[in-house]
Amino acid sequence: MQENRKGPVWIWYPGDFELYHGMRQNFSRVERGFGWPAFWKSEGFRNRIVFRRAYELPGEACFETYSSAVGYVLVQEISQERERKFPLGTKVTCGPGQVRVSIHLAKIETFPSVYVKGEVIYSDKEWSVEDYSGPSQKAGWSKYFTRETQDPSCWDYSEKVYEPVRAEEINGGVLYELETELTAVVEIRYHKGYRPLRVYCGESREEALDLVHCYYSWEPDEKTGRCPRCAVRFFYIPDCGMDEISVKAIHQYVDIPVRAQFEGSDALLNKIWEVSEHTFALCSGVFFIDGIKRDKWIWSGDAYQSILTNQYLMGDPDINRRTLLALRGNDPMTTHINTIIDYSLFWILGVGEHYQAYGDQEFLEQIYPKMRSLMEFCAGQVDENGFFTGREGDWVYIDWADMDKTGALCAEQMLFAKCWDVMAAVSRAIGENEQEYAEKYQELLEKINAFYWDEEKGAYIDSFASGQRRVTRHANIFAVIYDLAGEEQKAQIVKNVLLNDQVPQITTPYFKFYEMDALCRMGYRKEVLDKVKEYWGGMLERGAVTFWEEYDPNVPKEEQYDMYGDKFGKSLCHAWSASPIYLLAKYFVGLRITDPLTGAYEIEPHLEEFDKLRCVLPVRDKQVHIQWDRENGLAVSAEEYVENL
Amino acid sequence: MQENRKGPVWIWYPGDFELYHGMRQNFSRVERGFGWPAFWKSEGFRNRIVFRRAYELPGEACFETYSSAVGYVLVQEISQERERKFPLGTKVTCGPGQVRVSIHLAKIETFPSVYVKGEVIYSDKEWSVEDYSGPSQKAGWSKYFTRETQDPSCWDYSEKVYEPVRAEEINGGVLYELETELTAVVEIRYHKGYRPLRVYCGESREEALDLVHCYYSWEPDEKTGRCPRCAVRFFYIPDCGMDEISVKAIHQYVDIPVRAQFEGSDALLNKIWEVSEHTFALCSGVFFIDGIKRDKWIWSGDAYQSILTNQYLMGDPDINRRTLLALRGNDPMTTHINTIIDYSLFWILGVGEHYQAYGDQEFLEQIYPKMRSLMEFCAGQVDENGFFTGREGDWVYIDWADMDKTGALCAEQMLFAKCWDVMAAVSRAIGENEQEYAEKYQELLEKINAFYWDEEKGAYIDSFASGQRRVTRHANIFAVIYDLAGEEQKAQIVKNVLLNDQVPQITTPYFKFYEMDALCRMGYRKEVLDKVKEYWGGMLERGAVTFWEEYDPNVPKEEQYDMYGDKFGKSLCHAWSASPIYLLAKYFVGLRITDPLTGAYEIEPHLEEFDKLRCVLPVRDKQVHIQWDRENGLAVSAEEYVENL
Repeated sequence: MQENRKGPVWIWYPGDFELYHGMRQNFSRVERGFGWPAFWKSEGFRNRIVFRRAYELPGEACFETYSSAVGYVLVQEISQERERKFPLGTKVTCGPGQVRVSIHLAKIETFPSVYVKGEVIYSDKEWSVEDYSGPSQKAGWSKYFTRETQDPSCWDYSEKVYEPVRAEEINGGVLYELETELTAVVEIRYHKGYRPLRVYCGESREEALDLVHCYYSWEPDEKTGRCPRCAVRFFYIPDCGMDEISVKAIHQYVDIPVRAQFEGSDALLNKIWEVSEHTFALCSGVFFIDGIKRDKWIWSGDAYQSILTNQYLMGDPDINRRTLLALRGNDPMTTHINTIIDYSLFWILGVGEHYQAYGDQEFLEQIYPKMRSLMEFCAGQVDENGFFTGREGDWVYIDWADMDKTGALCAEQMLFAKCWDVMAAVSRAIGENEQEYAEKYQELLEKINAFYWDEEKGAYIDSFASGQRRVTRHANIFAVIYDLAGEEQKAQIVKNVLLNDQVPQITTPYFKFYEMDALCRMGYRKEVLDKVKEYWGGMLERGAVTFWEEYDPNVPKEEQYDMYGDKFGKSLCHAWSASPIYLLAKYFVGLRITDPLTGAYEIEPHLEEFDKLRCVLPVRDKQVHIQWDRENGLAVSAEEYVENL
Repeated sequence: MQENRKGPVWIWYPGDFELYHGMRQNFSRVERGFGWPAFWKSEGFRNRIVFRRAYELPGEACFETYSSAVGYVLVQEISQERERKFPLGTKVTCGPGQVRVSIHLAKIETFPSVYVKGEVIYSDKEWSVEDYSGPSQKAGWSKYFTRETQDPSCWDYSEKVYEPVRAEEINGGVLYELETELTAVVEIRYHKGYRPLRVYCGESREEALDLVHCYYSWEPDEKTGRCPRCAVRFFYIPDCGMDEISVKAIHQYVDIPVRAQFEGSDALLNKIWEVSEHTFALCSGVFFIDGIKRDKWIWSGDAYQSILTNQYLMGDPDINRRTLLALRGNDPMTTHINTIIDYSLFWILGVGEHYQAYGDQEFLEQIYPKMRSLMEFCAGQVDENGFFTGREGDWVYIDWADMDKTGALCAEQMLFAKCWDVMAAVSRAIGENEQEYAEKYQELLEKINAFYWDEEKGAYIDSFASGQRRVTRHANIFAVIYDLAGEEQKAQIVKNVLLNDQVPQITTPYFKFYEMDALCRMGYRKEVLDKVKEYWGGMLERGAVTFWEEYDPNVPKEEQYDMYGDKFGKSLCHAWSASPIYLLAKYFVGLRITDPLTGAYEIEPHLEEFDKLRCVLPVRDKQVHIQWDRENGLAVSAEEYVENL
């Protein structure tokens, strides 16, 4: 996992790397010729910092600094009673004895960072860093930035070249098809010399051919023949013959190894896993994003689900950390994450899941003050009953669903309660006082039951302020998955809500994630498996090579890509639709970490529906191999995971 | 004053322009090959904003947008029930009827800004702007950015070319001398083709010739032959013959017209005014800086004195606003301005002086929330007696002087008290409640007298915690200039402190500013005039063409440029040494604004020491002409001031 890497890395103020790249990510959305930056508060990086480190040197030591910032190196040699300043980039020799090195940096355009190369004195996460505002911090770093020739403000994508699998002359131009959907740079080579051409990219054949409604269209750069990186499966070049050019697509991605394998007796499920995997990998770049064509933004609710899936597919704590840091931003909090009150809460739950999966105490210690301030921010926005309501103008989302949103919402209180529980667990893990949080959890739980549980209906109501006492699935699903209701209540919820067709169905794959989680937890795995095959299988039948943002089997084919009143508005590669991985691994293979501290895990398989299954799942630094067949039952083995980087 | 300018200007989130350029300023210091960015918290700009404006259009209206940011224009035509998005840079036609225009912008490297060009719809300060965090604001703008071809992140300096007045071959190289000190780009033209040369710039001949200790040395750019902009009066090029190159210096400055004139019967005073003017103009660029060679930083204490002098020399409210905005930074305050607790307080006093001079209610309304939060920040750092002490690690400066700094300092309480008084005045001016502040002022004043006034000594003591009860000049000077003591107390202060040679002398020109202010207020003008002639005259005698950071007549000539243990450490062009302008105009010509609201002023001349004087002083939009001679006495006239821009 490279957590204890030796040797120099680029270092910066912790979080700045993520905030900078987070802005780049959230400002990268393009729609038919204009940039559409995310509509929430941007969280800037620091511009002036100082790194410090003290050494006790047995002899002389040399080091060199690399940085694009403005600044200097201050070397204080205590034994020699000498203090010297050096320009960045010069070679410094110092010692022996007690030596204090400070590296002063300033930069406006990007976050300041430095690489210190030397045998004894080199840059790693043990340096402290100050921003002249808050207390000293441990330096931030990334395993992707380990060479002095790199620039931490430019992400070095890995690349793989794809030739088109099909080319077709149509409407006076050429349509190219790629093997699958990619995030790629289309490159044109002109056989008869450059002339201005336009490349129309599409997630579907229909989109690429629609010169008016297609999202991404570009004029290749005259010198390089390259278009900007974007989501593409088909691309169309009007007014052009096939013999005039050759083309290729350079897929640019963050190399996060997929550590899981899944091969069972059900070919459809295998295919669903495979396509989920490809979907999820495409949406897992520098950060977890919702979709690769749209929004290309970092959404907290989406990221939370990605954290859950990541554990079983890549087992990569790094992308969790990057995403959580980018989402949370700076203190003080002035607005909710993505402007949505539930998304602030999902951030806390995401940190909890990250800890559960990786036992990452170092990160907890770093992020803990921001967890506290987020919870204080939310706790300052409660109504007279102590229920979390946000402030005027905040977005109370939960789901795109018809729900009684008058006053305090039950579903929000469910999340809020679970957050206090996570705060207690996290506090315990890093030796902070958990008592206060555990009490808040219990208090809120009791109030939720007092105000929202309807004995008659045997379910939680949406809200009580309007007196309507309506029941939808959302709060009840949260009660099950976050274990906020008693066993008897849960049984009633299943009967009165989850399996009750009179209660409006969940319509978004976002919330379907939670619903299927709840059904699995309550033992309705067969129903979930059928649903997975039907719903995800339905997309495959309609030619999906990645899973879609949303899918309604009843919509006619020609409207399949329509969403938000936009002909190609639907994202055809959306992270939340990779949930089958999470469901299959957690509830069918049944692998769960039981102790976040040690990483101890158990396997409680429910593979009745499978004839056989071979499966590998990551658990921290182990690869767990699971074999199952009806005859021999379960065989489990584990081996060390060795990361190649 | 262009306050009510018509037609489009570049607009941005208010304060962002100043924060961005403030960083550029504070990161621009260079010392012998390395950058030395200011050692305090940098205050970043916003990266994601939206401008909004609603129109009621009688007919169709067209506009075009100019911006280097990422984003789009949203046009909502209410009557047409139509909502459209446009890329930035496209021509938009909309209306008639009710139309809402929103311009969404994102940018990482600099602050986002836009220029909207149109007959009816164009960008000016009436647009509102949001940052998705705080409440909506009125857009920020500058009279220097009025053309669509400009880029608000690059300051367009005015330029004037200076040929050297002298060239001399020495030590195998050529030494050039300029007519005076400048902030200039040295440009080389190579007669025999380019070869690498190095240019050593100096504020003195000695510095330029000292290749080791000289602050600024550059290799001219190969293509342009230009060096970076820096402070320069002499420059030396080693290993070079006079015939090999020609050189010039391109002075780059912000064109803030000098509106004052001063010509009296005393040639030395005229010269002191003239050199003060040049010194002050050089230190008044995008911001008030301390000195042009060093530190090139925006210091609040220095800026406060510049605000006082500006009123009588340039009468330019714009540079005040820019400087005050850059200094104050963002909310919440987490550290003191420049890390110094008294410098936080001088910022409040600076706003007060700005209002007094220009009656700038619009700026007051903009800055008022930040005045309040600064005062709340300070009010949270008081000891058990309610005295302002800062927090551990804060810099309690007042002056470079031997002073008993144990516990709460009297001088700090004097400033703190005056700040409450300014808060009351400002609140009154913009219709906010002043009562609370007026009471705090009275309370603190009483406590100061109770704790710090020593009846026996007839003076304020530095501090009381140590029991030493030492008297220095500082607190007593503040008591006089901020009118915090009774008349009887002031008389005692004059006798026991100001005119008492047993009390250690003020040694810095920074604090001498306040001391002479106090002496003038107490009627000791003759003494001040003598001091001005002696001290500033002394610098002139030693060849000063701009006034120095510090001057001690007893220091031998060869150590004259030495400061901070550095051979050329002293800044030879330092804003605070331009104080004669302020003193002469305010206390000798005697011009003072009596009503900040209307700008009514009075002239109470004390020109006994002058045979005659012709003088012009700015008062808001008026040029006030004052003539005096012994025979005819005073003649005053005023004319409208017309700004050329």
